[in-house]
Amino acid sequence: MTSERDLLETIRRAFPESAATLGIGDDAAILELAAPGVYTKDVLVEEVDFFADADPRLLAEKCLAVNLSDLGAMGARPVAFLLSLAMPERFLPSFDAFVGSLADAARRHRVSLIGGDLSRSAQLTICVTAIGEAPPRPLLRSAARPGDRLFVSRPLGGASAGFELLKRGWRLDDSRSAVAPDPARASFEQRAFAQSALLQHLTPEPEIALGRTLASLESVHACLDVSDGLSTDLARLCEASGCGAIVDWERVPPLPGLATVGAGLVNADAAVLDGGEEFALLFTADARESELSTAAGRPVYAIGRMTKEPAILLERAGSRAPLPSRGFDHFASADATAL
Amino acid sequence: MTSERDLLETIRRAFPESAATLGIGDDAAILELAAPGVYTKDVLVEEVDFFADADPRLLAEKCLAVNLSDLGAMGARPVAFLLSLAMPERFLPSFDAFVGSLADAARRHRVSLIGGDLSRSAQLTICVTAIGEAPPRPLLRSAARPGDRLFVSRPLGGASAGFELLKRGWRLDDSRSAVAPDPARASFEQRAFAQSALLQHLTPEPEIALGRTLASLESVHACLDVSDGLSTDLARLCEASGCGAIVDWERVPPLPGLATVGAGLVNADAAVLDGGEEFALLFTADARESELSTAAGRPVYAIGRMTKEPAILLERAGSRAPLPSRGFDHFASADATAL
Repeated sequence: MTSERDLLETIRRAFPESAATLGIGDDAAILELAAPGVYTKDVLVEEVDFFADADPRLLAEKCLAVNLSDLGAMGARPVAFLLSLAMPERFLPSFDAFVGSLADAARRHRVSLIGGDLSRSAQLTICVTAIGEAPPRPLLRSAARPGDRLFVSRPLGGASAGFELLKRGWRLDDSRSAVAPDPARASFEQRAFAQSALLQHLTPEPEIALGRTLASLESVHACLDVSDGLSTDLARLCEASGCGAIVDWERVPPLPGLATVGAGLVNADAAVLDGGEEFALLFTADARESELSTAAGRPVYAIGRMTKEPAILLERAGSRAPLPSRGFDHFASADATAL
Repeated sequence: MTSERDLLETIRRAFPESAATLGIGDDAAILELAAPGVYTKDVLVEEVDFFADADPRLLAEKCLAVNLSDLGAMGARPVAFLLSLAMPERFLPSFDAFVGSLADAARRHRVSLIGGDLSRSAQLTICVTAIGEAPPRPLLRSAARPGDRLFVSRPLGGASAGFELLKRGWRLDDSRSAVAPDPARASFEQRAFAQSALLQHLTPEPEIALGRTLASLESVHACLDVSDGLSTDLARLCEASGCGAIVDWERVPPLPGLATVGAGLVNADAAVLDGGEEFALLFTADARESELSTAAGRPVYAIGRMTKEPAILLERAGSRAPLPSRGFDHFASADATAL
């Protein structure tokens, strides 16, 4: 029998240090920031955002990552987070692994757990609020200008492919290698592709360092993270900025292997254009790809440009056609949407 | 068919003003505080914290109130909040009423909704993160001193009684009057008592103004809010402060009518000593009841005193006996616990 006191003690032991003046254990936490605060909150719900048999360690990383990604998209420095965990009885045996992994991820991203609460629920529901410090010039979605180049921070399509692989029985093992449902029949190429796709879906890396670099560059204008798919998030960026965009299909980077090994799994085009949970940054800048890649110390990808006309077009094989937003309507489907 | 866009638009319309530099609509909100931040996060889960047929307007008030109560217990000034709402399809017809009531409550408490997210869930799950500004001297649980008087801010036992009344079919109507399951048989006294008990359970008032006043008084030392019951929260206060307490039963104020009209509903003694969700403030001070009541401009109740010996005793009819913490172990029962 696990008691509440044990659960709280597990949390306290896992998070011995804190950026807070007053951390876990009082009615509320006290935290002083060195800059205006940046706040975001995302909830992950069992059977909506993850499967009931999800590895609790990967789940812990992901619930933090999806929130830190939002901070990264503003160019903020993550500082702290709060956690609400509503758990069914059957999750209790996984609690220690969840908390241990969350503490590892928090340490890696240099954020402190400063509060939250534990409750019961039939469905595991994980809600994180992340707190960061704003840069002098935060990256807003509304700051794109006609003529800007449009960039994406990394190859796309892996999260959708990873989700499909999970549904087909693929898993990551303890060393985070991909295990096929029928190991004898999986090729080396399939396993290599599956690993990168599963990692992208299960433990997406928030673009915090890149976001901070971009916020420091005057040439970078608008930014958001690709949470609901390139086509949908680009539409949000365009709407907020009052402009349009032309995306050059040939330049949009797919996850390596997607068009070949991954083609049997997913519609590769749709995975790249419409797949959610990529947590890549989508941003605009009055700068060249090579300049920004040099400034970032890693590749970023120019995939099109912003236009004065409000239409969003996809240029492919020499012709242009409207790029519809195929992101989920979250209340016609089963996903989450930020306020 | 309700669309996501409609839901977000409902929220935006209901919250036209914001304390934030950047409010709803980007990846994260930006908010500058005039003092160190105070942060708390509480989740309410359907069938754990409220019944599935709960009035969405009362629910909206409560989810904000339970968070603001934590800020009040620190003496903080509430500024803003974030909301995560994981909803089943069947809650969508109640969404507008929920949001409207939340906006009214937010206006009354002068807090801005600055972010959050919407998601699907089988169980309605409401998670709020509240943000406030710390007073120069925040009220901690750990600051009680032996010799302090122990105070409670208002009569106790109403929340438990209200919960029992709900289970027996009592309701509040649209004008917040109590309606009995069998109206013909309910007396005027029963309806009057039921109304105050139901209001205490369904729309507890957070003690924000009182908390701020207490934080301004040097004589006030430790404080927390009674969320899990007087006996449990007093034990937390004593443990954090390294002292004990003697509670004078004759001085602990019960909700008027509890011992008479309410006696058929609940164990009145247990409702007062152990009943959770009161959200009264429990605090210690080197001051008299009359002084603090004058300073607060309303009654507060001296119910005992803090002792050097770590025991927590109840003095009743001339004899003293240990006062056990009968708060729920939240993972042996069905309640929530703060980190």
